[in-house]
Amino acid sequence: MPGSASQTAPKTSAGRFFEDFQPGDAIVHATPRTVTAGDVSLYTAIYGPRFAVQSSDAFAKAIGYPTAPIDDLLVFHIVFGKTVPDISLNAVANLGYANGRFLKPVFPGDTLSTTSEVIGVKQTSAGDAGIVYVRSIGRNQRDEIVLSYVRWVLVRKRQPGTPAHAEQVPDLPKAVMPEELAEGCPAIELTAYDDALAGSTFRWGDYAVGERIDHVDGMTVEEAEHQLATRLYQNTAKVHFDAHGARDTRFGKRLIYGGHVISLARALSFNGLGNAFHIAAINGGRHVAPLFSGDTVFAWSEVLETAELPGREDVGGLRLRLVATKNRPCGDHPLKTGDQYAADVILDLDYWVLLPR
Amino acid sequence: MPGSASQTAPKTSAGRFFEDFQPGDAIVHATPRTVTAGDVSLYTAIYGPRFAVQSSDAFAKAIGYPTAPIDDLLVFHIVFGKTVPDISLNAVANLGYANGRFLKPVFPGDTLSTTSEVIGVKQTSAGDAGIVYVRSIGRNQRDEIVLSYVRWVLVRKRQPGTPAHAEQVPDLPKAVMPEELAEGCPAIELTAYDDALAGSTFRWGDYAVGERIDHVDGMTVEEAEHQLATRLYQNTAKVHFDAHGARDTRFGKRLIYGGHVISLARALSFNGLGNAFHIAAINGGRHVAPLFSGDTVFAWSEVLETAELPGREDVGGLRLRLVATKNRPCGDHPLKTGDQYAADVILDLDYWVLLPR
Amino acid sequence: MPGSASQTAPKTSAGRFFEDFQPGDAIVHATPRTVTAGDVSLYTAIYGPRFAVQSSDAFAKAIGYPTAPIDDLLVFHIVFGKTVPDISLNAVANLGYANGRFLKPVFPGDTLSTTSEVIGVKQTSAGDAGIVYVRSIGRNQRDEIVLSYVRWVLVRKRQPGTPAHAEQVPDLPKAVMPEELAEGCPAIELTAYDDALAGSTFRWGDYAVGERIDHVDGMTVEEAEHQLATRLYQNTAKVHFDAHGARDTRFGKRLIYGGHVISLARALSFNGLGNAFHIAAINGGRHVAPLFSGDTVFAWSEVLETAELPGREDVGGLRLRLVATKNRPCGDHPLKTGDQYAADVILDLDYWVLLPR
Repeated sequence: MPGSASQTAPKTSAGRFFEDFQPGDAIVHATPRTVTAGDVSLYTAIYGPRFAVQSSDAFAKAIGYPTAPIDDLLVFHIVFGKTVPDISLNAVANLGYANGRFLKPVFPGDTLSTTSEVIGVKQTSAGDAGIVYVRSIGRNQRDEIVLSYVRWVLVRKRQPGTPAHAEQVPDLPKAVMPEELAEGCPAIELTAYDDALAGSTFRWGDYAVGERIDHVDGMTVEEAEHQLATRLYQNTAKVHFDAHGARDTRFGKRLIYGGHVISLARALSFNGLGNAFHIAAINGGRHVAPLFSGDTVFAWSEVLETAELPGREDVGGLRLRLVATKNRPCGDHPLKTGDQYAADVILDLDYWVLLPR
Repeated sequence: MPGSASQTAPKTSAGRFFEDFQPGDAIVHATPRTVTAGDVSLYTAIYGPRFAVQSSDAFAKAIGYPTAPIDDLLVFHIVFGKTVPDISLNAVANLGYANGRFLKPVFPGDTLSTTSEVIGVKQTSAGDAGIVYVRSIGRNQRDEIVLSYVRWVLVRKRQPGTPAHAEQVPDLPKAVMPEELAEGCPAIELTAYDDALAGSTFRWGDYAVGERIDHVDGMTVEEAEHQLATRLYQNTAKVHFDAHGARDTRFGKRLIYGGHVISLARALSFNGLGNAFHIAAINGGRHVAPLFSGDTVFAWSEVLETAELPGREDVGGLRLRLVATKNRPCGDHPLKTGDQYAADVILDLDYWVLLPR
Repeated sequence: MPGSASQTAPKTSAGRFFEDFQPGDAIVHATPRTVTAGDVSLYTAIYGPRFAVQSSDAFAKAIGYPTAPIDDLLVFHIVFGKTVPDISLNAVANLGYANGRFLKPVFPGDTLSTTSEVIGVKQTSAGDAGIVYVRSIGRNQRDEIVLSYVRWVLVRKRQPGTPAHAEQVPDLPKAVMPEELAEGCPAIELTAYDDALAGSTFRWGDYAVGERIDHVDGMTVEEAEHQLATRLYQNTAKVHFDAHGARDTRFGKRLIYGGHVISLARALSFNGLGNAFHIAAINGGRHVAPLFSGDTVFAWSEVLETAELPGREDVGGLRLRLVATKNRPCGDHPLKTGDQYAADVILDLDYWVLLPR
């Protein structure tokens, strides 16, 4: 029987603060999510990706998938979104990513859920916040891991004076190793891989370390678009949705989810990387500056490394730096002036893609 | 054979006026609609609901549904949308709802259609308009009733002088009775209901009459968002879409569909009511003030009543008042000053939800 | 093995210029696309069509389709979108359409791909651009032709001085013939065609040549809406997406994809043409003036011709002129003053629809 109002516990949560995180904590995040063709269409409408494998069941089947897989970044956003209410509701900043691996393709009808483990904490010297490191793991309905990644965020303390847990900083790899890249990619039937349909004649062997590619086109972002996307991922970070509350913040307006920028830049990168059909890993990434509605996103890529994959003759890996800017075309590949990022750079992402050989 | 232009009947309808409605009239509304996973994704993108039952096929199956059901309010909007061209094209205002019951879950692939019966008319004293009461019924492709509700609207007369049908005002229940709440909810397998995945540890018994819950977050609405939603429901009320025509209206701009506010408030209410997975009934509701693009919606709830359901040990009912405001957080539960609604209140909804016990 | 950066070919394409097109060229366009229920929902959300055949599996099955077919214009936009990177990236203007035929219904799950043949070229007298005529053909995964149409575009030359290929202008029919209209329409079971559910009591025989129908309602377009739509079609024309680059153009802002206007006008035309369930052919069309975000679209239709279809007692054809305007209701059927289009007219489309008899 329901109780009386005066006895009941408060029903809403203000989210965890820095002192609530202890290394070893395991968190089961809420709201499992069945991914469907509806999500695929929205993802296409929001970013405009044109990679043939994710766009066409017929193309995907011909080369060895059971059907077109869900875009790797859509998987990332859905897995990530679930962590927000538990990890970053009181975050000041999303500081970085590491050791992200896409371990199994996801298909329409699969249900994704996420758990996280706290793997490190480090209070800031000011004592009013601290860095929390978590490894988050996305699983499908068969409990198979589809994605695993580490991120760290700066989280406010509830009260500056409260003692925090003992500092512990995880040792994170600079990059995922080539021998770890192939797991999420089925054997590709190269004879069926049609370059004309894929939109690019450039295979893995055609790219060289140091090569820089301007992705040419610009994409302007509207409030409705990033809000639709971020809600689709069930990401509840209020900075993306509440214009009323945002008026009193540093920026005075809604911030766009950083993952939105990654997806836009990745979609733009089709022009120059049309055969880079699978994201195998995210080595690291930094949201250098915020993006706002009305800004236009441009992008360019640099080939950082090329890798043959052990035991795989079908695909090879390219380690890429993907740089996004706002309101600045990327013909001259803007990045840094000395140690400082150029004013217009908003994203510096280090990731691995697979291409057919 | 087609005729000559001069003989043909006008092909467009200006909609029914008050004097066209007679108690007993039965109306078959146009455009049956198959609800799909695409609609579910859009609904998620537009409002950001996080109830596990509607989000995850795996979760829904575990507790006793054949697959994830369509959100009850999405069903409501689609059933409602069909009535607009026949009922409220010449409406001045949507005055109220009563006796709304969700009688059967709807699943992707089901086709919904709507019929209405005029159950009352009452001309205003000014004689230029009148209140029309209709019971609208939504059915699936097997002709099973999935939703039934009454609404009343103020409709203009074609000509002030025309005689109207004799006044008849239906006797409507203040609220749906507890024994009428369970029909749309299958038997729930409580042992499989996972609070961590559902996002709340608060079951039916943890809520008490009089308890008030601020849902904390705010959601700003954009023109593109409410237009996408309202078209998705095939609701044709021009006040939502025609900015050109709206310039000469009282507000000078497009009005947002009232149902949009209900869905936003319901999605926000997840924070505090995460286990309230099924809307069983709508007892009544009032759109207190209009919402416009750029406004930010907040919400809070009050527990009005708790009810055990006859013969059901799995779920219990909470009768809630759901209040939405614009541009005003709800920490102090704003509602009325004396008899007057507070200036920022836009919705006052009285409805029943079911929670696991 | 990947090469060195200095050896590699540029990976992005600037698109074909006028001198690159030679009659007889066959082009395989990139990115096959599986059309799904998700696309249908987005199409509904973006334009608000209410034709029962495309909206309801139950209605479609009752009259002879295996399930609800994809809206003909959604098929058109997806087939068309693929041609943009190869045909019109350097286009100055999209000049016209001819001989468009919808030859087979498309259903969710079908995968569309497009090829084009250059069928004519004609350099302008100024010598800095030229008209390119292409026939584009959309096919499903069984290699069946679902759509075939001709369009011509004005394309810039890479360099004004370069010699172009010899002029060749195709002979294009003014209109598709009645005997060519039925191929994309299965036999319709008239006894099962329910006018009340379809939303109109007017069958083919109720329309007369010369009849003009104002479609009454207006629909205001937002940037987010046309961008979502145009990306959904994987149409990459940068004029629709890049507000930063658009600042230096003639209009100073983003242009809306012409096909967006066609779909809006077609959706509005439901009010007056509710039984015109299938677009059989596009005879010709002209985007008279550009549409921008914030504008409100209105539309009206004129019956140009009526046609019985050889061997078909179930359906008949109406050849319609569909005119769209911006910020101007169409009660007086605006079109031209002398030879000049009225200032507010933005679309003049000549097409065939089928209606039940």
